[in-house]
Amino acid sequence: MCLGKVWYILALLQDTNGSITNNMVKIVGKRNVLSNFEERYCYSVDATNVKELKRIATTVVFPRNTEDVSKIMRYAYKYSVPVVPRSAGTSVSGGALPLKSGIVLDFSKMDKILEINKDNLYCIAEPGVVIAKLQEKVKEQGLFYPPDPSSLAVSMLGGSIAMSSGGARSFKYGTTKDYVINLEVVLADGRVINTGVNCSKNVTGYNLTQLFVGSEGTLGVITKATLRLIPQPASKKVLFAYFDSLEDTSNTVNNIISNLITPSVIDILDKNTLLTIEKYNPVGLLTDKEAALLIEVDGEEETIKKQYEQIIEICKSNRSAFIKTAETVEEMEKIWTTRRSSFGATAKLAPDVVTEDIVVPRENIVKAVRGIREICNKYNLKTCIMGHIGDGNIHPNFALDLRNEEEYQNIQKAKGELFDLAISLNGTLSGEHGIGCEKMPYMKKALSKEVLDVMKAVKKVFDDKNILNPGKIFEQV
Amino acid sequence: MCLGKVWYILALLQDTNGSITNNMVKIVGKRNVLSNFEERYCYSVDATNVKELKRIATTVVFPRNTEDVSKIMRYAYKYSVPVVPRSAGTSVSGGALPLKSGIVLDFSKMDKILEINKDNLYCIAEPGVVIAKLQEKVKEQGLFYPPDPSSLAVSMLGGSIAMSSGGARSFKYGTTKDYVINLEVVLADGRVINTGVNCSKNVTGYNLTQLFVGSEGTLGVITKATLRLIPQPASKKVLFAYFDSLEDTSNTVNNIISNLITPSVIDILDKNTLLTIEKYNPVGLLTDKEAALLIEVDGEEETIKKQYEQIIEICKSNRSAFIKTAETVEEMEKIWTTRRSSFGATAKLAPDVVTEDIVVPRENIVKAVRGIREICNKYNLKTCIMGHIGDGNIHPNFALDLRNEEEYQNIQKAKGELFDLAISLNGTLSGEHGIGCEKMPYMKKALSKEVLDVMKAVKKVFDDKNILNPGKIFEQV
Repeated sequence: MCLGKVWYILALLQDTNGSITNNMVKIVGKRNVLSNFEERYCYSVDATNVKELKRIATTVVFPRNTEDVSKIMRYAYKYSVPVVPRSAGTSVSGGALPLKSGIVLDFSKMDKILEINKDNLYCIAEPGVVIAKLQEKVKEQGLFYPPDPSSLAVSMLGGSIAMSSGGARSFKYGTTKDYVINLEVVLADGRVINTGVNCSKNVTGYNLTQLFVGSEGTLGVITKATLRLIPQPASKKVLFAYFDSLEDTSNTVNNIISNLITPSVIDILDKNTLLTIEKYNPVGLLTDKEAALLIEVDGEEETIKKQYEQIIEICKSNRSAFIKTAETVEEMEKIWTTRRSSFGATAKLAPDVVTEDIVVPRENIVKAVRGIREICNKYNLKTCIMGHIGDGNIHPNFALDLRNEEEYQNIQKAKGELFDLAISLNGTLSGEHGIGCEKMPYMKKALSKEVLDVMKAVKKVFDDKNILNPGKIFEQV
Repeated sequence: MCLGKVWYILALLQDTNGSITNNMVKIVGKRNVLSNFEERYCYSVDATNVKELKRIATTVVFPRNTEDVSKIMRYAYKYSVPVVPRSAGTSVSGGALPLKSGIVLDFSKMDKILEINKDNLYCIAEPGVVIAKLQEKVKEQGLFYPPDPSSLAVSMLGGSIAMSSGGARSFKYGTTKDYVINLEVVLADGRVINTGVNCSKNVTGYNLTQLFVGSEGTLGVITKATLRLIPQPASKKVLFAYFDSLEDTSNTVNNIISNLITPSVIDILDKNTLLTIEKYNPVGLLTDKEAALLIEVDGEEETIKKQYEQIIEICKSNRSAFIKTAETVEEMEKIWTTRRSSFGATAKLAPDVVTEDIVVPRENIVKAVRGIREICNKYNLKTCIMGHIGDGNIHPNFALDLRNEEEYQNIQKAKGELFDLAISLNGTLSGEHGIGCEKMPYMKKALSKEVLDVMKAVKKVFDDKNILNPGKIFEQV
């Protein structure tokens, strides 16, 4: 906290001669620079609930094109100024926080879809394109961009590529990494590279594309992306099945998969989540059940009709207490609204929500959920557990008041034990939210010294001055 | 040539005191080391036709487990001995050639499938597992490992991961990179790391997994792989359609894709290929047609029946001269045998076949095929063009006699122009064969200085002594 205050004062002082800001104005023009304290203050937060990390950017810049970014990076490199690329600021791991102050690059003005190429099944877009908008635009041509982070109505491509975002559909369709073919990247010193070509098959040298995907803005600044598209599925069906035990819930998932069915979504909502949604947004959920599964299948109508019936049978054979099917689009939408309101409902339980994102092999899901509940009981934490059970990706959402010192200390301890649990179950810290600064202290639990050393050495290749989103993923020496 | 002879003599001399071999014997035992000249000579070739690159390994070692590899690398690192990982030696880009002599690691004794996990949809296997064998074993459980390099009956996982091999099914299913979740890798100095965990969703740090996939043994030695599996498709259907023009062929492919159909395979065989197959392996092919498409659809029976009919209509609407459908498994197999015999038939045209592997955006396929033919006419080269047209991945197979100096010079020039052509059409050098040493001289055409510099710097992080498969991808300084 004390350090936070020092930084706060430094932020006010450090650009007093205005040299950074003035140079940014020279590059992008006055209307594309924010220098007032109030404006910069808005960029000291993203969607992460980490109270002690508030730092104020020296200046906020809106680049208009790759050349702007290149010039900015050349300046930043020369004067060792930290640079934080930011798109919508929806990171829940602190990915967009300017921890060492410096320049925040706001990509919301680089928001063009440059090409939708139906013949080659790809699109080319800038980092500021909102994911939902891209999905709509390609859908008009019968095409599909599957990655669907729950923030997609506002979150942008740049951030989703930087974090390799997932979403509910990952079980069938994979995550963002599976759709990035080629990136234009501005390196730390301002040089511009393309990581590949616009062909989905390419083994010409190392896979730099996938090195940048998920690197959280620490290796370079993404200025353009070529994304693979697939045909829009013809049809989909959704159901919502309740269970009286976690074992039955988990066995249902396993039975679906071992019957070789690949639903587009297999999400879980635990008892607390059901209770909380029903309390704050009553839609007639059963609140005496242990858990519910939201299952969606998509594809050709005949195929999914068969699969849907099979899934209902499997739910029944695992003693599902009640299955809510959906015959109309409205009914489907109602089920999805329930799922989507889970986070919002949790947020009503307390002033703050800390959302976590562990992943374990699917066979360990029950152990993980039980373990999470034990930790929460130990530290007296209100927790709603939901997640993409098909992927073994669980989001415990802890509702608490971070201003309360005891609760704050408890969540720190709980997080440590949560990650220990995930690792002991052969899983890891994050499935789709990234490490940012929020999970950085726990990286040593998840990765061996050798792996961390290798990652740090790779970071140094790309960012020898440690100016690219410093203080994220791991502390650079 | 002269340099080759010098190396040859050096290979005979360099381990005369036997220190490398003796140390290898200490690690893996005498029965797992080949030191006779005749034995080592066999490892001076792989499936690549590059006459001037014959070097003899100092010693050939069969590691039995990760620990062996770690000990070998520790020794090699200490004494700066080059190490070339090799599985089946089916590389056509020189990937497995011991260009600087040293130790060849033959992985054929590390050939265990360690786990097939149906609940978690993955398997864990050693690098010496033959791909076809893995596919059979997982198929017994209803599962599917899609990557299908044409050498899969003999080629092994290690090599296919190192080269990120593709195959005919890439259009629908992607390539090897899309199935590797986690790797155990021995680093240059003998340290052992895991690049991830056995969960398909994982954003804990940089994507080291995909950095090793396709790195051709130049960054580390793969000793274990966790591979994602999917359900085996229920059914498949194949057809073979002839066309009188390349435009009609290409338009057929585009129409299929723009009708949102995703065949598992869309391969092309050009006139010369059809002629050559029919000449050496008569199966009743039409030899007066410009090209033929092999199209396979797979999935649920009802769905693919509909798609199959749609595809036949699209072929007809593009004036397909004749469509050979397959109603029985035998008929399907016959069509596939035709496709598979194309390389073997080409090999009968001349003593040597040089196979290339360019990739271009699909919209440029006709230009690419035309351009290849022009180059071949210019240099008087017999060429059969085939490939995965759905991916824009074309294999021109040049039949020639490399001992003939003029033909040898011609193929060198033709290759240069071929790569210029691919790049001018926004494509690149290799879609699935890798760079190895065979395409290394052309890397400067394909990649900018900045990208090459970055790749070389990454190489240095992992292999500061340049002992891992030296002389591949790019010349290390």
